Amino acid sequence: MSQFDVVVIGAGPGGYVAAIRAAQLGLKTACVDAFKGKDGKPALGGTCLNVGCIPSKALLQSSEHFHALSHDFADHGISVKGASFDTAKMIERKDGIVSKLTGGIGMLFKKNKVTSLHGLGRLAGREGEKWRIEVADGDKVETIEASHVIVATGSRPRQLPQAPVDNVTVLDNEGALNLSAVPKRLGVIGAGVIGLEMGSVWKRLGAEVTILEAAPVFLAAADQQIAKEAFKTLTKDTGLDIRMGVKIGDVKVGKTVSVAFEADGKAESLTFDKLIVSIGRVPNTDGLNAAGVGLQTDERGFIVVDEHCHTNLPNVWAVGDVVRGPMLAHKASEEGVAVAERIAGQKPHIDFNTIPWVIYTSPEIAWVGKTEEQLKAEGVEYKKGSSGFMANGRALGLGQAKGSVKILADAKTDRILGMHVIGPMASELVTEGVVAMEFKASSEDIGRIVHAHPSLSEVVHEAALAADKRALHG
Amino acid sequence: MSQFDVVVIGAGPGGYVAAIRAAQLGLKTACVDAFKGKDGKPALGGTCLNVGCIPSKALLQSSEHFHALSHDFADHGISVKGASFDTAKMIERKDGIVSKLTGGIGMLFKKNKVTSLHGLGRLAGREGEKWRIEVADGDKVETIEASHVIVATGSRPRQLPQAPVDNVTVLDNEGALNLSAVPKRLGVIGAGVIGLEMGSVWKRLGAEVTILEAAPVFLAAADQQIAKEAFKTLTKDTGLDIRMGVKIGDVKVGKTVSVAFEADGKAESLTFDKLIVSIGRVPNTDGLNAAGVGLQTDERGFIVVDEHCHTNLPNVWAVGDVVRGPMLAHKASEEGVAVAERIAGQKPHIDFNTIPWVIYTSPEIAWVGKTEEQLKAEGVEYKKGSSGFMANGRALGLGQAKGSVKILADAKTDRILGMHVIGPMASELVTEGVVAMEFKASSEDIGRIVHAHPSLSEVVHEAALAADKRALHG
Repeated sequence: MSQFDVVVIGAGPGGYVAAIRAAQLGLKTACVDAFKGKDGKPALGGTCLNVGCIPSKALLQSSEHFHALSHDFADHGISVKGASFDTAKMIERKDGIVSKLTGGIGMLFKKNKVTSLHGLGRLAGREGEKWRIEVADGDKVETIEASHVIVATGSRPRQLPQAPVDNVTVLDNEGALNLSAVPKRLGVIGAGVIGLEMGSVWKRLGAEVTILEAAPVFLAAADQQIAKEAFKTLTKDTGLDIRMGVKIGDVKVGKTVSVAFEADGKAESLTFDKLIVSIGRVPNTDGLNAAGVGLQTDERGFIVVDEHCHTNLPNVWAVGDVVRGPMLAHKASEEGVAVAERIAGQKPHIDFNTIPWVIYTSPEIAWVGKTEEQLKAEGVEYKKGSSGFMANGRALGLGQAKGSVKILADAKTDRILGMHVIGPMASELVTEGVVAMEFKASSEDIGRIVHAHPSLSEVVHEAALAADKRALHG
Repeated sequence: MSQFDVVVIGAGPGGYVAAIRAAQLGLKTACVDAFKGKDGKPALGGTCLNVGCIPSKALLQSSEHFHALSHDFADHGISVKGASFDTAKMIERKDGIVSKLTGGIGMLFKKNKVTSLHGLGRLAGREGEKWRIEVADGDKVETIEASHVIVATGSRPRQLPQAPVDNVTVLDNEGALNLSAVPKRLGVIGAGVIGLEMGSVWKRLGAEVTILEAAPVFLAAADQQIAKEAFKTLTKDTGLDIRMGVKIGDVKVGKTVSVAFEADGKAESLTFDKLIVSIGRVPNTDGLNAAGVGLQTDERGFIVVDEHCHTNLPNVWAVGDVVRGPMLAHKASEEGVAVAERIAGQKPHIDFNTIPWVIYTSPEIAWVGKTEEQLKAEGVEYKKGSSGFMANGRALGLGQAKGSVKILADAKTDRILGMHVIGPMASELVTEGVVAMEFKASSEDIGRIVHAHPSLSEVVHEAALAADKRALHG
């Protein structure tokens, strides 16, 4: 029986990174993963690389190009005749990027001497100081032993009971990324990150998109000033029809799908050619034998861990979507690294408050730290500064001069407590906020730091100056 | 005679920002500026806003769109028939952005109660504790008095004696931004920022572009690893024909322009339809009466200032391109703010070492801090880490997976000494390096900070990990 210091179950961004880091620290490591790609072959990288973050960014860019061609190029004096696109080729490009990256993990495993095992990992039990893990690939079951186990099994889409995903008419993220043609009428249930990103892709490619969201408040986790701006731009500019406070009723699936729902106390029904269900994700513990070995999970199915990602079982750790905290790839990776380092005797620390959030709509939305609503709820005295992209030279040059940056700082110490961005490349601009918060920067610090001209980051600079009541361009 | 606490001469990014900041600090401020826009009317903002940073970014984006349409869209499955562009409309869009921003400065002046005076400012002499400044607008001369004068007169293109700029056939930055049609054969003398940016614009729009550079080393100010990568991509991908170590001989200007030159010891001659001369810029002190009032300038014409931007004359300050240091808009603004604050009794400080540099080619080039060559020359022991964009999910999604990030850190303390980027949105990514260096971050610090996934900034993260010898994806 193969013996390892560390066996990681799951090769998504939490698991594969944990495995590489563990191996780099001298631990004999295996990574067990059951995911199969579109070609039916084992594919490392989990949801993120195969059917999540990466393929969605590829399609978003393709659809943005097509949208720019039809809507923005005329402003630049560029004209075209007969613009069209080939959905299959767009999907093929996306699949190419996915293969490149998932294949890359295989190479990184080889380089770092991580043993890669294909199959579903199951905690079979403890023998002395070792955990036994069964790796089941179809009928073939291999048992391995490890001193430490890191569970990084991720999450899967939550299902709507009345509309089970068939990935033909009712789609989850995987189906939404693999449509062979643009549906005329696309319904989306859930206005979260996936719903908004996928809705944007297909809307830009020509679908009529209606998003039905149960919550009364749009993007409740985001700062509401930014969320309101996002709602306006996504409905007005992108053209998404977003209905809030919707109660979904019967769903009838045939060649099309009819969704009955109630909104503003009124019963309605809409018929779609395709329906994306994106109502959140649930932790993946199926097949792990959690109950069998006594691995504690909470009422929502998450594996219970302490602040070091340690479970209730000795030397069993869990990271990423399968534990508490935001379901973000980079949060999972960070936990993976931290657990590997802790197993190796180091003392890593993760600050959840400096983990950035990104929504890749157009414009992008990103933030780090507290929202204004959180600060109010916590009774923190704060000051704020905002600045818009509409007079930013780079944004105007790019033709993307919408959105704003908002910085929240402690009223007394001026320490930055949150940074919220809606605008071009928000996903990159938020990094400045993360680094600033890690160094406990004040808004004055950011105001006194030179920002390149012309750059989008000048809007961050202005927001910091505004928080300090000394905006130059305000 | 109008009396002011502060008179700023020049309303470029150094001057207008100094004027706003001075006014905000309670000083009665006037800003004198002689620039006229394309419509012959006064236009604030100087070279940067009118004929520099801003209009070039507008044209770069238009040309990048056209280039993407012809070269990249097919990858995304997008096809068009008969793509064409209207140069006049492209220029018109650019002019619209310029007017918006230059007009914006007028509004900021009003809001901040800065008196805006149109005309050429001249130091007429000192009366007691006051400086007299003459503002000449054609025949009309107004004299005003100020306790402090901030000279922010900027720079102008250096001329090639044998090819004076006529902006018909021989162009400076202004002419290069206002061509009414794409020249078939475009010559560029000087492979600096302006030459590379303007050469890129017209190349992408269809010109055959040859750049002749006197220096033997490409982008000598940049880290040479990055410069070599830039040379390769600009020649191979963008298709610029860049000749280094060129000695320019006779230039014959008629309907076309013939440039005789020597390269590799061989005499050659090339004929162009248009020629851009971009061989650097010289400080603007004409009309200032520097000699008359005894304002000290150096052998290259720069106004001599101390570390606080104070000249040899009492209460006369100078900022931006007209003094030593890099000719960068944001450096000028920073000095403008610092001088205004110093006049108001504050103690600002500028660290030239954390001022970012950006070249807006495609991919962009940006850096902050020391290059490897500088560290070697200074005998500093350093370590380095590099990472490329080719396996970065966001870069692949964007279709811009070329380039790399390099981080240099002190061999003993691990403190970051320089960050160098060639790649998508380098202009924004460099901000992380600036903030990190301002906080004296180590490469380990950046390695331990969570970066959003998927984002371009993950390449910065990897480069930092690599400098610390623990790249996860290397």
